Amino acid sequence: MADAPPTDDALRDDEDAYALSPDAMREIRDAVEQGDAPRLTALMEPLHPADIADLLEQLDQGPRHRLIALYGREFDGEILSELDDSIREDVIGALAPDVLTDAVRELESDDVVDLLEYLDEPTQEAILEVLEASDRVAVERAMAWPDQSAGRLMQREVVTAPERWTVGDAIDHLRASDDLPDQFYHVVLVDPRHRPVGHVTLGKLMAADRVTPLADLVEPSFRTIPATQDEEDVAYAFNQYHLISAPVVDDAGRLVGVITIDDAMIVMNEENEEDLLLLAGVGDESIADRTLQIARQRFPWLLVNLGTAILASVVISQFDEVLAALVALAVLMPIVASMGGNAATQSMTVAVRGLATRDLTGNNALRVLRREVVAAGINGAVFAVIMGVIGTIWFGLPMLGVVLGAAMVINLLVAGLAGVLVPLTLDRLGIDPALASGAFVTTVTDVVGFFAFLGLAAIVLL
Amino acid sequence: MADAPPTDDALRDDEDAYALSPDAMREIRDAVEQGDAPRLTALMEPLHPADIADLLEQLDQGPRHRLIALYGREFDGEILSELDDSIREDVIGALAPDVLTDAVRELESDDVVDLLEYLDEPTQEAILEVLEASDRVAVERAMAWPDQSAGRLMQREVVTAPERWTVGDAIDHLRASDDLPDQFYHVVLVDPRHRPVGHVTLGKLMAADRVTPLADLVEPSFRTIPATQDEEDVAYAFNQYHLISAPVVDDAGRLVGVITIDDAMIVMNEENEEDLLLLAGVGDESIADRTLQIARQRFPWLLVNLGTAILASVVISQFDEVLAALVALAVLMPIVASMGGNAATQSMTVAVRGLATRDLTGNNALRVLRREVVAAGINGAVFAVIMGVIGTIWFGLPMLGVVLGAAMVINLLVAGLAGVLVPLTLDRLGIDPALASGAFVTTVTDVVGFFAFLGLAAIVLL
Repeated sequence: MADAPPTDDALRDDEDAYALSPDAMREIRDAVEQGDAPRLTALMEPLHPADIADLLEQLDQGPRHRLIALYGREFDGEILSELDDSIREDVIGALAPDVLTDAVRELESDDVVDLLEYLDEPTQEAILEVLEASDRVAVERAMAWPDQSAGRLMQREVVTAPERWTVGDAIDHLRASDDLPDQFYHVVLVDPRHRPVGHVTLGKLMAADRVTPLADLVEPSFRTIPATQDEEDVAYAFNQYHLISAPVVDDAGRLVGVITIDDAMIVMNEENEEDLLLLAGVGDESIADRTLQIARQRFPWLLVNLGTAILASVVISQFDEVLAALVALAVLMPIVASMGGNAATQSMTVAVRGLATRDLTGNNALRVLRREVVAAGINGAVFAVIMGVIGTIWFGLPMLGVVLGAAMVINLLVAGLAGVLVPLTLDRLGIDPALASGAFVTTVTDVVGFFAFLGLAAIVLL
Repeated sequence: MADAPPTDDALRDDEDAYALSPDAMREIRDAVEQGDAPRLTALMEPLHPADIADLLEQLDQGPRHRLIALYGREFDGEILSELDDSIREDVIGALAPDVLTDAVRELESDDVVDLLEYLDEPTQEAILEVLEASDRVAVERAMAWPDQSAGRLMQREVVTAPERWTVGDAIDHLRASDDLPDQFYHVVLVDPRHRPVGHVTLGKLMAADRVTPLADLVEPSFRTIPATQDEEDVAYAFNQYHLISAPVVDDAGRLVGVITIDDAMIVMNEENEEDLLLLAGVGDESIADRTLQIARQRFPWLLVNLGTAILASVVISQFDEVLAALVALAVLMPIVASMGGNAATQSMTVAVRGLATRDLTGNNALRVLRREVVAAGINGAVFAVIMGVIGTIWFGLPMLGVVLGAAMVINLLVAGLAGVLVPLTLDRLGIDPALASGAFVTTVTDVVGFFAFLGLAAIVLL
């Protein structure tokens, strides 16, 4: 332990600590343009495969292919694992056959599985073909588990020990093994039917006497994961229970693999990203996608929005006489709709996130709903007063202010209700609440907002 | 390794696999109401501290305090660590002094630091006072590092070995230590000035011969983390480089602690949540917050939105004569604004996420901007045709359709531009791009949308 007293430095915001610097990027682009392979290799040498993958994602297709051609046999299998799905196929297509073969053979079988998941079938076959026979069998076996399941995520190599062994037995066994996994953190104790019954951390194993029974050292909290479990649930379990690694079991409870926290972290990050993008009406999209791709991906969401906007317009058109009589209504009506849409987005996002983190459950749904509606009512009342005053002063019509204020309260209450009820209902129906909440919820607040404001105006002002 | 062939089960969507069942919740509520302490303790016995924390978050304050009183000395320190910040203070206040003392003393010093970070000062002092002297010193030393820095996140206990040692030396040393950290995954090699020079996984240590120099076993990729680094950057590094643990160093490069991936995973999840909530115009909010709290937290965001909505209304009011002459404009104008707002949200969310994951950098900003604008132009053209036709048919005015279509193209182009430029600019200015993008971007599209549509109408139709 160091005893240096902590210095009082300010927090260092290393935005660029891990990003490729523009200078480095420029030099690499230069080397690619000049076709200078030795310089390119020297420039890329210090980069981690994950950084090289980022670099490839940031290049246009032309320079990307030239870089791959120049980089040649230096191309590492891990780069393929790190690549974004959106350009993985493109990069694989650009690799020379022998480079691809070498790259894929370098990978552990679980990384190959991960690689294959998002490729089209011909590319999958091309990769399976270049694998050695034993690896191919392992990969095909893993691919038999459902998409996005724990079985796909796990690595098959597990370090196990019979539950009756001592520390000495285990250490001797480890020393004698010549193909231990690259990274492992626990020895899994199994019963005679190969069902995991506990695990021992390597730290405890190292510190204990040789005669200590392994069973005396097992971790107090131990969980197994069913191979068919959704990887999203796996990530949740790792985060909730601070697991480092967990054995994966088949339907009979037998050990079939192990999942480690680094894989769970990647899944959690992806799931968070998916929710964020879905809520914004963007599908599975990445910065590396091409223009036509993103135009096509966003089109359906905009089309849905157009439908809901037209619905709102139909509501407005019912009040054309009121609008013709009082143009001030046309000036103010977007305010009601916009405030409702914003309040609804707030409630909805909190609800969608609560469902994702399982903080919003059947046990507290009613309480959360009540809270949202009351909070919306409070803010609605405050904004009603503010807007009532503004409306009155602006147009010199006190009753217009009253109508505006009343519509504001109604729309914020509806926003609070819809913001919680829509995601909860979608979740009950087995639909990802992030997927469709936005369109539903803002339709509700638009329609209600326009209807309340113009309807009240028709009654009170005409 | 098990050789059971994978079964062909469907993916298991274990939504409720790790959530407290409504039945269990009901029984616990019952036991609390009846003041049945033994039954409560029995019901809570199988729960992980993280689940107990969730349970407390889902209860109202009254039952929560009754549960805590009944549960009494069973209350585990880890529950405090797992609690959401929003109710931690409340729970600490509800604990009997002796229960609090026991709970806090059970915790590792880095967990105490984590606990203190979000408490007010009197509660901090109360907790520091009950710590044993040595722990208090350790905690105060950690608290001297900046908020949300690697120094706060790290644990101080590190297992080290001089760089010249062999495997045998290290194992003998580990066996002789009687206070090894609870969880550790690497032995960190240090030079004579206590600067980390590499690390060896415990797995490699176990498998190697006693005479092997540790230096021969170091991991190929090794990174140290400055103690003053922002925890967000730390989480990024763990995710990007698949680190399991990384030594933390002070300004002189000396080892001061170690960060493990489970802590990084928690930070990453929190950062993702923060971005999601900020984009929706919600501050640091949780499902456990109370009604008044959430009303107050959301108010400023709604107020900003009100300001921008009024700005849009002012734009509309410039065209009151046009609106009075043609009510159809009032009916259709929300469509232009809504489509622009949606397209902008799409571009903006992708940009904000790209900045957070560092996939959007100075190196590809121009390319991304070009792509967004072209994609927006393509979708704009398609929707212009659709809306032109609808507008013409609905109101029987071909020129109205043309105006609507033209306004649609203009607004979607602006949405694409603003959606990328606003987050990029905020990021350059050192402002969290998620914080203010929403308000800025939708103001731009509202104002431009209304101005384009009504302005064109004024020119063409009157």
